[in-house]
Amino acid sequence: MTEKSVVEILNSSILSQEIILKGWVRTFRSNRFIALNDGSTIKNIQCVIDFETTPEDTLKRITTGAAITVKGVVVESQGKGQSVEIQVSEIEILGDSNPEEYPIQPKKHSFEFLRENAHLRTRTNTFGAVMRVRSKLSFAVHTYFQENGFNYVNTPIITGSDAEGAGEMFRVTTLHPSKAPLTEDGNIDYSKDFFGKETNLTVSGQLEAEAYAMSLGKAYTFGPTFRAENSNTTRHLAEFWMIEPEVAFMDLDGNMDLAEDFIKSVLKYILKHCQDDLEFLNQRLLDEDKTKPMNDRSEMSLLEKLRFVVDNNFKRVSYTEAIDILRNSTPNKKKKFQYPINEWGADLQSEHERFLVETHFKCPVILYDYPANIKAFYMRLNDDGKTVRAMDVLFPGIGEIVGGSQREERFDVLVAKMKTLGIEEEELWWYLDLRKFGTAVHSGFGLGFERLVQFSTGMSNIRDVIPFPRTPQNAEF
Amino acid sequence: MTEKSVVEILNSSILSQEIILKGWVRTFRSNRFIALNDGSTIKNIQCVIDFETTPEDTLKRITTGAAITVKGVVVESQGKGQSVEIQVSEIEILGDSNPEEYPIQPKKHSFEFLRENAHLRTRTNTFGAVMRVRSKLSFAVHTYFQENGFNYVNTPIITGSDAEGAGEMFRVTTLHPSKAPLTEDGNIDYSKDFFGKETNLTVSGQLEAEAYAMSLGKAYTFGPTFRAENSNTTRHLAEFWMIEPEVAFMDLDGNMDLAEDFIKSVLKYILKHCQDDLEFLNQRLLDEDKTKPMNDRSEMSLLEKLRFVVDNNFKRVSYTEAIDILRNSTPNKKKKFQYPINEWGADLQSEHERFLVETHFKCPVILYDYPANIKAFYMRLNDDGKTVRAMDVLFPGIGEIVGGSQREERFDVLVAKMKTLGIEEEELWWYLDLRKFGTAVHSGFGLGFERLVQFSTGMSNIRDVIPFPRTPQNAEF
Repeated sequence: MTEKSVVEILNSSILSQEIILKGWVRTFRSNRFIALNDGSTIKNIQCVIDFETTPEDTLKRITTGAAITVKGVVVESQGKGQSVEIQVSEIEILGDSNPEEYPIQPKKHSFEFLRENAHLRTRTNTFGAVMRVRSKLSFAVHTYFQENGFNYVNTPIITGSDAEGAGEMFRVTTLHPSKAPLTEDGNIDYSKDFFGKETNLTVSGQLEAEAYAMSLGKAYTFGPTFRAENSNTTRHLAEFWMIEPEVAFMDLDGNMDLAEDFIKSVLKYILKHCQDDLEFLNQRLLDEDKTKPMNDRSEMSLLEKLRFVVDNNFKRVSYTEAIDILRNSTPNKKKKFQYPINEWGADLQSEHERFLVETHFKCPVILYDYPANIKAFYMRLNDDGKTVRAMDVLFPGIGEIVGGSQREERFDVLVAKMKTLGIEEEELWWYLDLRKFGTAVHSGFGLGFERLVQFSTGMSNIRDVIPFPRTPQNAEF
Repeated sequence: MTEKSVVEILNSSILSQEIILKGWVRTFRSNRFIALNDGSTIKNIQCVIDFETTPEDTLKRITTGAAITVKGVVVESQGKGQSVEIQVSEIEILGDSNPEEYPIQPKKHSFEFLRENAHLRTRTNTFGAVMRVRSKLSFAVHTYFQENGFNYVNTPIITGSDAEGAGEMFRVTTLHPSKAPLTEDGNIDYSKDFFGKETNLTVSGQLEAEAYAMSLGKAYTFGPTFRAENSNTTRHLAEFWMIEPEVAFMDLDGNMDLAEDFIKSVLKYILKHCQDDLEFLNQRLLDEDKTKPMNDRSEMSLLEKLRFVVDNNFKRVSYTEAIDILRNSTPNKKKKFQYPINEWGADLQSEHERFLVETHFKCPVILYDYPANIKAFYMRLNDDGKTVRAMDVLFPGIGEIVGGSQREERFDVLVAKMKTLGIEEEELWWYLDLRKFGTAVHSGFGLGFERLVQFSTGMSNIRDVIPFPRTPQNAEF
């Protein structure tokens, strides 16, 4: 008698075979039908017990959430909604679940309640599906890069540099929180800290990834990054996972091609490998939509959205063209934008990005060649002297999902830019070395992994697509 | 004319084809032969230029480290050591490399010097090979788990819990380093910190991974972990990557099977996919060995060691048996151990582990069933009341590469153990919930990824197998 998982039983024809199966009770009805789930798939398997031969005490302990072992035979199911079921000959309760206390009952729980029970929420269909999709999506990311000759590089999490300017940082320290040693002039003596200087949690692995691209050719990171910003929104996390490919000898056009091909490839992967979970999430959103007024309903279902992205070209639009479109748009003329677009140089807000993607183009958009002064110091200056080779990929419902650029490869231009911004050369000596010794055109981008999981699963709150979210005032679990 | 990478040119028969190739000059000799490397493989490709038609100024700029583009035809090579070479028709210098200043010259550099130039060290054969192997090994890890039904789970990096006791922790904070707000009784007021409480960098994702195993069945982490220990050794890092699988319904025997199968599988993967890099590293160690006295030389080459692990069973030995072997061993009797083994209960030191693995068994060893009082609180107590279902996998030359256990699944036993150790129930309420609702036998282990990379590449210092090492007094780059 062999032990099988639910997915193994459903995906192979092992009718009449005797098996052992372990899992958690989802529901138990008529003292006879157990819906058992073991996490291997969103599908439960029906285990049919003979209540006449099962001790009363055991029957009582078959409650939602209890862990059990069943022995039995796989048979064709008489009931609806399943092809096979288990005719149980033996059942053992491994771990009870007191129905008076167990938080995850077979009813609809609010996502907020489930967030407070993040250690148990993957026992629900929705979060089981989301986290299985997240896992498969991670693997799709690695598979794409590895099959295309990229090297995975683990850039440092603790960093002594704060030159990237991508956001507020968390300090990492072993100094006593109130009795830190001081220097003679009364400042904190960071030479006594663990690393001999002030250190923070990384906001990006890009600069280090560039060093690897400029030696191994193609590199990518996939690791945690941090923002100490007090943003209590459905789009921000203090700790999130970022993917950052970086490629030597690649210009911005190549970068746009890469971003588009990469996103299509990983979505194709989950469409192929997460059918059951995506169908469940698709239906969940359709059901949710029915409760909304007509105007608020989605034009496309989740699966339609995913297929749409896979099948259509992303629209590539320069910042300058985008400003023209926005300036002449109805909402701008009717003063419906909170930030009206009057002139070239304006930083685009979420409302403008949404207009371009959701109303004007109705497809993913890549904006490129942004004004230099609203973008980071390392982006390559165009010959016009006022724009840089930056790009943002904008997605419907999500906004910016990718930000990237061709990097400034010219030593003198980079040094001049750093000087303007007050970034010390000593701080980034090694980054400048990459321009000093064998410099070349190179490009890359960053993709916030949770945004991609949100798009893939249709979850509206980013806290619901990472196992244990970190946000202001919250580091539970 | 298409752009090709070196590995593409070497792995396909594109003789007579005209191509573009970009890379960095490794050497240039006789004003004619450029050894070009683009990071796609350890192998250089020979680019032959016609110095009579190449401008003098260009010839001067073909220096070690310079980035160049060549156009030319792939032809059979006349020279030794390569099958094909490029007959160059056009050459362009993309980025110069001043030979007076470029640190990476075509000569032997000390690993210490290269560590100080970690941003350039992957431009050497050794570090290019090590980091490519590291990347492939990462992918082998994901591939193994994904193909075996595990879900990748990103457990939190910032944690509010310090109950794991795996080591000293780094504090994560946004409070002012010297003017932190105080409570009425003069302590730091952590309610004013970013997360509303004291937070640290994680030392392990195990406890959270258990929550995912107890819902999705099989889970694994692969992420950074931290130790704020002042260990300046060749075996310790302050920041390192850890792999932690966790499986519901699996006991310690299954855990040993999993660890052994996993390690064999990932080593098999690199033996298949990293041949060139491993052969180079193999030869590097053979050459290094020749400079050593006979007695210090390795019995097996790197490749032999890898194949040995793949082909042989790990020896499984209980702690009690191991103590007997050690007590009766020659070094113990001759008082050669720094810590003599006198009685059952002694904590095994590195010298004892090395004796067992390298002298006595001469193969990887799995020790299991350790005394409860030298192991962590969450390990399952055996019926003897004094040992726990713990296991360590010991490797020749590396020592402990895996530490794991069957987890204590019994609520009462776990609570009692926590009480003994002074761990607050409130601190781990959610971890206890896993024993309260549908508990079951489950197991898992942790594997320090850098130790695995060390074993796979033969690098003796752990700082040489992670891109930008973090150690006491060092967070450069």
